[in-house]
Amino acid sequence: MPDPVAHARARRETSLAELFELLRIPSVSAQPERAKDMERAATWVADAMRRAGLENVEVVPTGARDARGHPWIYGDWLHAEGAPTVLVYGHYDVQPAEPLELWHSPAFEPTVRDGKVYARGATDDKGQMFTHIKGVEAHLAANGRLPVNVKFMIEGEEEVGSRNLEQAVRDHAKRLAADVVLISDSSMWDEKHPSIVYSLRGLAYFYVTARGAAGDLHSGTFGGAVPNAVEWLAKLLAAAKDPKTGRVLIPGFYEGAEVDADERKALAKLPFNEAKYRRSLGLGKLFVEKGWTPIEATTVRPTFEVNGFWGGYIGAGQKTVLPNEAHAKVSMRLVGRQDPQKVGRRFRAFVKDFEKRAPGIRFKVEQPSANPPAKVPIDHRALGAGVRALEGAFPGTKVVFAAEGGSIPVVGTFADVLGVPTVLMGFGLHDENLHAPNEHIRVANFERGIEASVRFFDALAKETPASLAGRAKRPKKARARGRR
Amino acid sequence: MPDPVAHARARRETSLAELFELLRIPSVSAQPERAKDMERAATWVADAMRRAGLENVEVVPTGARDARGHPWIYGDWLHAEGAPTVLVYGHYDVQPAEPLELWHSPAFEPTVRDGKVYARGATDDKGQMFTHIKGVEAHLAANGRLPVNVKFMIEGEEEVGSRNLEQAVRDHAKRLAADVVLISDSSMWDEKHPSIVYSLRGLAYFYVTARGAAGDLHSGTFGGAVPNAVEWLAKLLAAAKDPKTGRVLIPGFYEGAEVDADERKALAKLPFNEAKYRRSLGLGKLFVEKGWTPIEATTVRPTFEVNGFWGGYIGAGQKTVLPNEAHAKVSMRLVGRQDPQKVGRRFRAFVKDFEKRAPGIRFKVEQPSANPPAKVPIDHRALGAGVRALEGAFPGTKVVFAAEGGSIPVVGTFADVLGVPTVLMGFGLHDENLHAPNEHIRVANFERGIEASVRFFDALAKETPASLAGRAKRPKKARARGRR
Repeated sequence: MPDPVAHARARRETSLAELFELLRIPSVSAQPERAKDMERAATWVADAMRRAGLENVEVVPTGARDARGHPWIYGDWLHAEGAPTVLVYGHYDVQPAEPLELWHSPAFEPTVRDGKVYARGATDDKGQMFTHIKGVEAHLAANGRLPVNVKFMIEGEEEVGSRNLEQAVRDHAKRLAADVVLISDSSMWDEKHPSIVYSLRGLAYFYVTARGAAGDLHSGTFGGAVPNAVEWLAKLLAAAKDPKTGRVLIPGFYEGAEVDADERKALAKLPFNEAKYRRSLGLGKLFVEKGWTPIEATTVRPTFEVNGFWGGYIGAGQKTVLPNEAHAKVSMRLVGRQDPQKVGRRFRAFVKDFEKRAPGIRFKVEQPSANPPAKVPIDHRALGAGVRALEGAFPGTKVVFAAEGGSIPVVGTFADVLGVPTVLMGFGLHDENLHAPNEHIRVANFERGIEASVRFFDALAKETPASLAGRAKRPKKARARGRR
Repeated sequence: MPDPVAHARARRETSLAELFELLRIPSVSAQPERAKDMERAATWVADAMRRAGLENVEVVPTGARDARGHPWIYGDWLHAEGAPTVLVYGHYDVQPAEPLELWHSPAFEPTVRDGKVYARGATDDKGQMFTHIKGVEAHLAANGRLPVNVKFMIEGEEEVGSRNLEQAVRDHAKRLAADVVLISDSSMWDEKHPSIVYSLRGLAYFYVTARGAAGDLHSGTFGGAVPNAVEWLAKLLAAAKDPKTGRVLIPGFYEGAEVDADERKALAKLPFNEAKYRRSLGLGKLFVEKGWTPIEATTVRPTFEVNGFWGGYIGAGQKTVLPNEAHAKVSMRLVGRQDPQKVGRRFRAFVKDFEKRAPGIRFKVEQPSANPPAKVPIDHRALGAGVRALEGAFPGTKVVFAAEGGSIPVVGTFADVLGVPTVLMGFGLHDENLHAPNEHIRVANFERGIEASVRFFDALAKETPASLAGRAKRPKKARARGRR
């Protein structure tokens, strides 16, 4: 057992007590009335970094003078000459805690029950992020040095779309330069399978509007002659996905979405119980693209999803209106080489074509975001370091590579601006209520996370900047907008 | 020229001044803060009836003691022994006037511009209803008697769904017994074509809900395996109407909706300019059931219309939710012998069948209302009296029989409870902004309306209760819910 791990274990209770201090600060980035708390949290993180032994610690403001954002915190330790440099990314802001009445203990008073710490931010991301500050501290306290160079970038706007992050990374590209990014802001596959997330889906988001007559009309007087905007938008959306096969019917949509046989084989080995999955969702049946497994369909296959729809009268009771306007929010998860801009053009063409068959209706499509998919080759040596770290910290488990169905745009930003791959090594679990009341993290996993951090730095020290180089996939036009 | 018409013409200015008094009372039945004004308006109408010479005038309360409704006003004159009895129905309540800033003159300060009286209620229905009080007055003032027996029922809840009307008609069925009902609460075909509305569509209204997973889910994590409630509700609604022919695809839907050749011939003669109609609606194209004209499709053919739809995230910006719930309001206009309950059962069966093809989705259908269609045979002698009245009052025009696409459930109630047909003889025009800012009525049409009322009583006196009997269509299960 390396000295830093022993050191971390001896300090268990102190580490947890420190985490509690941070969890007590209600740093809700979305709520303007929490501005002071955001400042307090940033200062607290900076102080914790300094206590850990990090140098050049700085609270860096974001945004323009007239549109001030929440600051991020920089810190580094750069005395491991010739060794790789790892950039640790995390965030100190949290989701709103509302509805408060659903919490079994106060959201900002961390409480331990059944070996779990309940508090807003416990797993997303204060608890996970803090493991790396403690990992650095353990090395420095035990040995007076780290085996690799480290830099930290801890932001305060992840829960509000990381709106200033891409600019910050661009402005500080030189200062943030590294060989690999390390993020702990995700979940393990399950308690027995710690995981490295090697693949993230991209995201193309659309606002779709259908317009018919100049105004809403009386459905008695005009019903029968006037096209109904809600119905035609429903028809358009219905036409976009085959009800039998689940295939997206936008021509060319699947171009670049191929999955290779090896990856399918690897995914097939992941433990998955469909009946249990269905039960946990309260579903009698799943609706999966024909020819693919639920795991594939939710991770390495692209999707078309209507996220919202509204039109006509949506209040209480009956109103006999013939709606002249309808709106939908639509998003597509993208994989492989799918380009969100290109997919956007294809969707527009699909809508344009459909419009010809919709008498009197005009459709409008806007695309507010376009995040390309991100993938690190499974054989990348940085991922190998992650695997060894998890194997050491979670004895008796099996480490797996997992593909994640969601999108984490910062991964694209780091790949795009810094040209480096990201190791996503999460210590959370899917059932820990992130973004919901009663968020929590397992105390044991917080402690194992610190050990994994310690071990990751050691494992990465076996590499050189050269051995890590040249393997990051660089999406051409990444757009950072926070985790989605 | 009969004396009562001369009398009415001589009193033109007085009649208009009296109407102004009524229009100044903001009797908005939907607004609780107008309760005192509702009382004032009811009292005003009762006083006007008494001044006109009507007897047994009474303001009749509605609703239970703990859920008091707005009263209706009864009055009669029953001294024309052996002659038919006509029940005049109208309403003294009005729609809310909001948004007030769009009115060019105050909503409750009647103002004459270009020969039109602008005020809330001018055409719907104070102006039209008042013509009959003045019609009665003209007869009694000129001759000391009426040629027929008349009864009045002027309600105060038409704009809030006539919620106590059916009960009131049932409770007072004996007192309200008549040979024919006369209502002026509709529009002329156009300025050159005064019309008798002989046909109204029925209405079946539905709330449809689709439910999938137990809760909303993250579209990244679960998208690809979980059925999307919004998409499946969209697919259901899209499947209910053929996009090419406009035919409703619910099996058995059209049963009883046949239109006979004579009626089609009569409708084909109505003046209609499709290009002008499209332009007035701001539409490049209409969407009309194949094989039918726009007039037929909006009057004597049944429809399926989505009145509202909502599900998922409908706020500003992007949210990547996979919605587990979606809602729609759907209504169908019914004609001929279509039974709203039976159509409801057929729609449920259609949804049930569709559900089999929607993995993981459960649909729920509720039917909050079921108003059967209503039709008076064009050769009914009561309609003939209406035609003669209009021909006399609107010289130089051509009286037409019109089918109305909307539903007026009170017509069904009178047919059902009293067993009598209704003559719908409107003096409004479609462009008079009923339910909208700047509502108005042509002064000339208000005056001609009084003449038409006078002449209707004379024309009806040519009939006997026997000649008018036995021709009313009695829908089996009428439900009164105000004009829809």
